[in-house]
Amino acid sequence: MKTFNSSNFKLGILGGGQLGKMLLQPAMNYGVDVSILDPDPASPCSFFCKNFHLGSFNDYNTVYNFGRHLDLITIEIENVNVEALKRLEAEGVTVYPQPHIIELIQDKGLQKDFYKEHNIPTSPYLKIQNREELKYYEEKFPAVQKLRKAGYDGRGVFKINSIDDLPKSFNEPSILEDLIDFDKEIAVLVARNAAGEIKTFDVVEMEFDPKANLVELLFTPAKIDEQIELKAKEIATDVVEKLKIVGLLAVEMFVTKTGQVLVNELAPRPHNSGHHTIEACITSQYEQHLRAILNLPLGSTELRRPAVMVNLLGEDDFVGEAKYIGINEISKLDGVYLHLYGKKITKPFRKMGHVTIIDHNLDNAFEKAKIVKDTFKIQA
Amino acid sequence: MKTFNSSNFKLGILGGGQLGKMLLQPAMNYGVDVSILDPDPASPCSFFCKNFHLGSFNDYNTVYNFGRHLDLITIEIENVNVEALKRLEAEGVTVYPQPHIIELIQDKGLQKDFYKEHNIPTSPYLKIQNREELKYYEEKFPAVQKLRKAGYDGRGVFKINSIDDLPKSFNEPSILEDLIDFDKEIAVLVARNAAGEIKTFDVVEMEFDPKANLVELLFTPAKIDEQIELKAKEIATDVVEKLKIVGLLAVEMFVTKTGQVLVNELAPRPHNSGHHTIEACITSQYEQHLRAILNLPLGSTELRRPAVMVNLLGEDDFVGEAKYIGINEISKLDGVYLHLYGKKITKPFRKMGHVTIIDHNLDNAFEKAKIVKDTFKIQA
Repeated sequence: MKTFNSSNFKLGILGGGQLGKMLLQPAMNYGVDVSILDPDPASPCSFFCKNFHLGSFNDYNTVYNFGRHLDLITIEIENVNVEALKRLEAEGVTVYPQPHIIELIQDKGLQKDFYKEHNIPTSPYLKIQNREELKYYEEKFPAVQKLRKAGYDGRGVFKINSIDDLPKSFNEPSILEDLIDFDKEIAVLVARNAAGEIKTFDVVEMEFDPKANLVELLFTPAKIDEQIELKAKEIATDVVEKLKIVGLLAVEMFVTKTGQVLVNELAPRPHNSGHHTIEACITSQYEQHLRAILNLPLGSTELRRPAVMVNLLGEDDFVGEAKYIGINEISKLDGVYLHLYGKKITKPFRKMGHVTIIDHNLDNAFEKAKIVKDTFKIQA
Repeated sequence: MKTFNSSNFKLGILGGGQLGKMLLQPAMNYGVDVSILDPDPASPCSFFCKNFHLGSFNDYNTVYNFGRHLDLITIEIENVNVEALKRLEAEGVTVYPQPHIIELIQDKGLQKDFYKEHNIPTSPYLKIQNREELKYYEEKFPAVQKLRKAGYDGRGVFKINSIDDLPKSFNEPSILEDLIDFDKEIAVLVARNAAGEIKTFDVVEMEFDPKANLVELLFTPAKIDEQIELKAKEIATDVVEKLKIVGLLAVEMFVTKTGQVLVNELAPRPHNSGHHTIEACITSQYEQHLRAILNLPLGSTELRRPAVMVNLLGEDDFVGEAKYIGINEISKLDGVYLHLYGKKITKPFRKMGHVTIIDHNLDNAFEKAKIVKDTFKIQA
């Protein structure tokens, strides 16, 4: 790959959402020449990138033409045109994460097969082609059906309690997973650069909003035994070694009530579960991803202070121009960092921003998180 | 002023250099709609702001037309057209810092008069109109002549050792300051919002490169007595209260060998002496400036870890397309943050970037700073 040693180094990002914006911020510190491709003219990155290209990252020609004059391409969303990336790679453009890994992760069926093949612990599963096939697996219910492709942020997931639920199930290629009676959901972010150096961040624990089926809050250190922490990091490292990915990988895992750690799913990019690293760690996940793909030594993942991250979702019942309520109140709290993504339109449960709270004491951070949740609203 | 409560809030920044870029980064977290005016089409901000306007911030019409549709205007350089800002202010656009304060600070003569009038300790001075007048003050030499206007980064300053130096002195309105036999140069950053809330950062101590007459390195905590630290903060707070500035103010000071603290000069904006706050403090100077001008509660200025900041200057004897040497080596050091400004052309002593080093132990940070200085080069 071309070595990064000047401000003429051309980095392209597929996707211009909030993850792209948070990746852009440290990229600004490296003085690289950034181009971004996104179909939304009002996407968070569109306001902050001179070389913002309007177009679909799913379209072969759009991605190919976007990428052919760049030195390095990365992603902030995995739902991109892999064929175009493969051609770019073949023509000498560096693409990290590698297109074949994006392709693997785009398909939950292939992801599961990968775990199985490499002895990575995960919940038992079946691959099915359509709704009709589900009938034969009644003994598996309750179970979870997940679309093989294009699931995102809780979409594409359906819980089948009994055969009566089948009319509402997906009639597309899916996986059927055993329902895991888990105790906790955790995530480990791990990065690997082209030289093979690997570093993991500390485990984060997630709390979900059952209504939105989205992470409502996450925190670190996770409230788990040291042994589980180690096991989770080992598994995440193992996944990265087996994949040989270059870049950041988010490994979401279940901790079962019997203390098993099972991989749930992967994201080959900076991830919602690592927002807190911006203020809480020596190196943020975004900078770590940049270091990995630029083939620089990885940064320290040391946690400087315990942290809680709260997602700011558009309030239920409000659609329209976003209004932020409570900025003054939460700005009074020390160690509370507001991140608004600058999306002009709010919708129920749309990710409009997040708040990270750091404190020497995790309980204090939780108290502040409660104030943030009670005080800060996004309405229209 | 219009209250900031949506992403339609329009913030304008006069100046698109590195300070503007570092102000833009936290502005991205507030989701505000940012416009930037700068005469250089390749200025650091030009690549990262959709609403980048090419034009002179010294030109009345350019500044007026840039600002008339904005909600709030601020600066990253004080050398701007104040008359246009006054008109904008009269027409209802909020301008912070206030134009009359920018005007005062633009003129070192008025700055000095302000100190005198408000009993703010500073070195004795005279105002002179031209070189001719200097002849009458021979008894003052050695002394320092400073241009009243447009001095910047060591330019516009001339040391007069004896009457023999007069042919090389400035023949313009200047101040003639007594030469201060100082022990240290320090700076205090202090912010004030429109509600009158004031917060100071800890004192930073500066080390100058005698050849470039530029800050080479700064660190905090400063190696000064607690009493001097308190006195410096008191003076900085006093200046801000007397000015009633809204925004951030950098107060550069001398500590004399007899323990006096004298104000040297002011900058009504984020400042080189506060770069380290990005990683070393709970709130960065850039975010603090935003909070102040948006009239939000100010953030905690707590120093999270001791820090050293090294300016990265273009190496002597190199002019042309900048090449960065040593990125790999310095990226191996924990707690070392590279900030490249993305300027494509390097020149001797041009500010091309900076590195901040944080460490629990200041001496360790100095050791890493030494490695950075010895390893990282900007050549062409």
